[in-house]
Amino acid sequence: MNEELQNAQEILDQHIDDSNEMDLSAYDIAQHLKTLKYHDEELFTKYLNKIDPQTLGDVAIELPESMLKDVIENVPSEKIVEALEELESDDATDLLQYIEEIDEDKARELFDELDEEDKADILRLQSYNDNEAGAYMQTELFSAFANEKLGDAIARLRQLKAEGELENISQLFIVNQDRVLEHAIALEELILFDFSKTLSELINGSDKYEPYTALDSENITDVADRVKDYDLNVIAVVDSKGVLLGRITADDIHDFIEESATEQIYNLAGVNDEAEEDETLIKAGKARAVWLFINLFTAIISSSIIGIFDDTIASYVALAVLMPIVASMGGNTGTQALTVTVRRLTLGEIEFKDAKHVLKREVGISLINGAIFGLLMGIVAWIWFDKALLGVVIALSMLINLSLAGLFGTIIPLSLKRLNIDPAVGSAVLLTTFTDCIGFFSFLGLAKWILL
Amino acid sequence: MNEELQNAQEILDQHIDDSNEMDLSAYDIAQHLKTLKYHDEELFTKYLNKIDPQTLGDVAIELPESMLKDVIENVPSEKIVEALEELESDDATDLLQYIEEIDEDKARELFDELDEEDKADILRLQSYNDNEAGAYMQTELFSAFANEKLGDAIARLRQLKAEGELENISQLFIVNQDRVLEHAIALEELILFDFSKTLSELINGSDKYEPYTALDSENITDVADRVKDYDLNVIAVVDSKGVLLGRITADDIHDFIEESATEQIYNLAGVNDEAEEDETLIKAGKARAVWLFINLFTAIISSSIIGIFDDTIASYVALAVLMPIVASMGGNTGTQALTVTVRRLTLGEIEFKDAKHVLKREVGISLINGAIFGLLMGIVAWIWFDKALLGVVIALSMLINLSLAGLFGTIIPLSLKRLNIDPAVGSAVLLTTFTDCIGFFSFLGLAKWILL
Repeated sequence: MNEELQNAQEILDQHIDDSNEMDLSAYDIAQHLKTLKYHDEELFTKYLNKIDPQTLGDVAIELPESMLKDVIENVPSEKIVEALEELESDDATDLLQYIEEIDEDKARELFDELDEEDKADILRLQSYNDNEAGAYMQTELFSAFANEKLGDAIARLRQLKAEGELENISQLFIVNQDRVLEHAIALEELILFDFSKTLSELINGSDKYEPYTALDSENITDVADRVKDYDLNVIAVVDSKGVLLGRITADDIHDFIEESATEQIYNLAGVNDEAEEDETLIKAGKARAVWLFINLFTAIISSSIIGIFDDTIASYVALAVLMPIVASMGGNTGTQALTVTVRRLTLGEIEFKDAKHVLKREVGISLINGAIFGLLMGIVAWIWFDKALLGVVIALSMLINLSLAGLFGTIIPLSLKRLNIDPAVGSAVLLTTFTDCIGFFSFLGLAKWILL
Repeated sequence: MNEELQNAQEILDQHIDDSNEMDLSAYDIAQHLKTLKYHDEELFTKYLNKIDPQTLGDVAIELPESMLKDVIENVPSEKIVEALEELESDDATDLLQYIEEIDEDKARELFDELDEEDKADILRLQSYNDNEAGAYMQTELFSAFANEKLGDAIARLRQLKAEGELENISQLFIVNQDRVLEHAIALEELILFDFSKTLSELINGSDKYEPYTALDSENITDVADRVKDYDLNVIAVVDSKGVLLGRITADDIHDFIEESATEQIYNLAGVNDEAEEDETLIKAGKARAVWLFINLFTAIISSSIIGIFDDTIASYVALAVLMPIVASMGGNTGTQALTVTVRRLTLGEIEFKDAKHVLKREVGISLINGAIFGLLMGIVAWIWFDKALLGVVIALSMLINLSLAGLFGTIIPLSLKRLNIDPAVGSAVLLTTFTDCIGFFSFLGLAKWILL
């Protein structure tokens, strides 16, 4: 373990030595700091203070909440302010919000120290909802007027880059006097042009330079789809009048895709992705308890169906042994259909209008599997308890439960989506309630009718 | 419905009219073609043939297998060959593979018609495994020698772009005489330089132009992580000697992130992502049946535990009513821990060495929730069946089952990962086997001991 500590220390030393070179990613630095923190609190604080303001902001964003708290408490405010100013506006807004969640007063104090332009940017970005494109944009971008000479625009780019104000540029956005976005030219085109000409001469009426845009109030999911469909490196963000406000880059979309996938995986399992980000047990535990509570409630409902048949079970205990198998197989079959439907809805492969097509496929699959596994389990039950009719009962109830599981596993997410509810949230609990109830009812009901 | 058809037709007409403008994404065109196909087979074939070769390849990649078959059968081979040549090498390789899966002879026939350079590229890309970075690269890129003048390199870029050979360029890669990659300069830097100087003069010993590289044999997951950590638009792919082979762009990484997430979501639910891509029932149904079979086998094992206690159940049927609740709550608690652990492993937030830390958190959460829900269900059971000791039995067994569920939900994916097995595959089935067995055994065992 000490070796690990030493290793982290050496790597950080190396990084700090040739400081201006970003040889380590912010993510890597954060990982090494974590190692220090776990082993030696003092050493951690020492290295935290060694990180230069150009890197500190990016690193702070990567740190877990508990360690961000250490940053606030141990790094001088002026240095944190400098780090915030070095960040791109979207990242600065995020970091300030993380700080606010830990210490509101500190966040306000830091905000007050920022320069007026950064303040205005952050206020604007904070005004958007989490699911709006505006919340994901950065205001730093490379723009020019059409009557400017390309060479002059490039001179400005040089200036802005030298001041560290601009990074990760792949497009020049061309706006009119009202800052309405009119064209966008990729750098790979720009570099081929004659620098002494004006931009309007270069564009020369061609509609090749139509910009890809997102409305600031647009849903970020739709924007991410557009970036993906057209393989964009960057998309311009405009307001309803077409005024250029900012840009969203491919790496922001990366993060969004990955976060959305995590959210979906967690929702399907009854876990809240935001609550899980917290390192302490309480927040995550509470959010999970909510889903467990709903599950307890629905489990009691399906169990009361068993209660209806208590006489039947008392007179033939083999039913109690076999009934969880019917429920479990139904739950699994339904979950397969549910998961595929939820994911295909997300990927845009299917929509509500394809319901008939999708239902045919999903119910078809579960009907076939219901028949196969019903038959298989029927034979097993017959041999196990040496009673042919018991085999018939379980075979029939599995056929019923598995087919209906496929039906509900498809209908539930399609309907939720139609109602504009996230089809991943709560659908699994709803589904297993159905499959448990149908499983117990069909199996015990058939048993009472056929066997007794 | 006819309205939908007419709408698709109009949009496609518009697109075909001003053909050279890529106003619709390939994805959109594919969607509209699907609509035609569902309504009017003949119209579909007609429009398929209207698509120009520049777009056809991209569209074909987006089509489902059944419709790709229509392309092969209805579009003349020469046009498909042209479409393949228009594609970037990675996409051409993919498309040819899709065609091969439908009709091997046709794929061979098309391959033979390609020009020698394209053939060589495709053969090289086909030689990589699905999980190797090399399989994701395209060989088309912008490179130069250090002793070249920047202006000459740019003249070559102009030429290649005019020929339609290069798209989506954001870096110039600088290689030595053996094509070993030495530097990479982003276009946003390049555009600021003096075009009359040689590249080595411009680089001038600065280590600012160190390229980000991936080894061709490297795991694509690691490469995607690097692209994400450093917010790259492109990463160079080199062989073990450092020779530049190709590049992977951000949009390829987008696709990879999304596909990996789908694979993980599906695996957790016992669904195979590749089998699901097939439109027919048989392939997907078979893959799902494999997991259902495993689940049936494990369900029989856990049910045989109930069989051990058949006398206990016969003498007190309330046990049969309550036992699925213990199992269900354990399954859900375990799934929460499992899902969070699997996802955090994927996101690189945790590793095997953090096992102690993660276990403490997960078992802590499930212990607390086990106590809460054990107590709650204990009271419910007491009131329901008017027997206090029954409440004690279910409370204790839920505490045991939920805590152990948290433990196994964490240990299973951590161990699988340690053994280099995908922690999403099969872990859910393994987990519910444990939680069912422990749930039934603890509840019925305690009941036999305490109640009877």
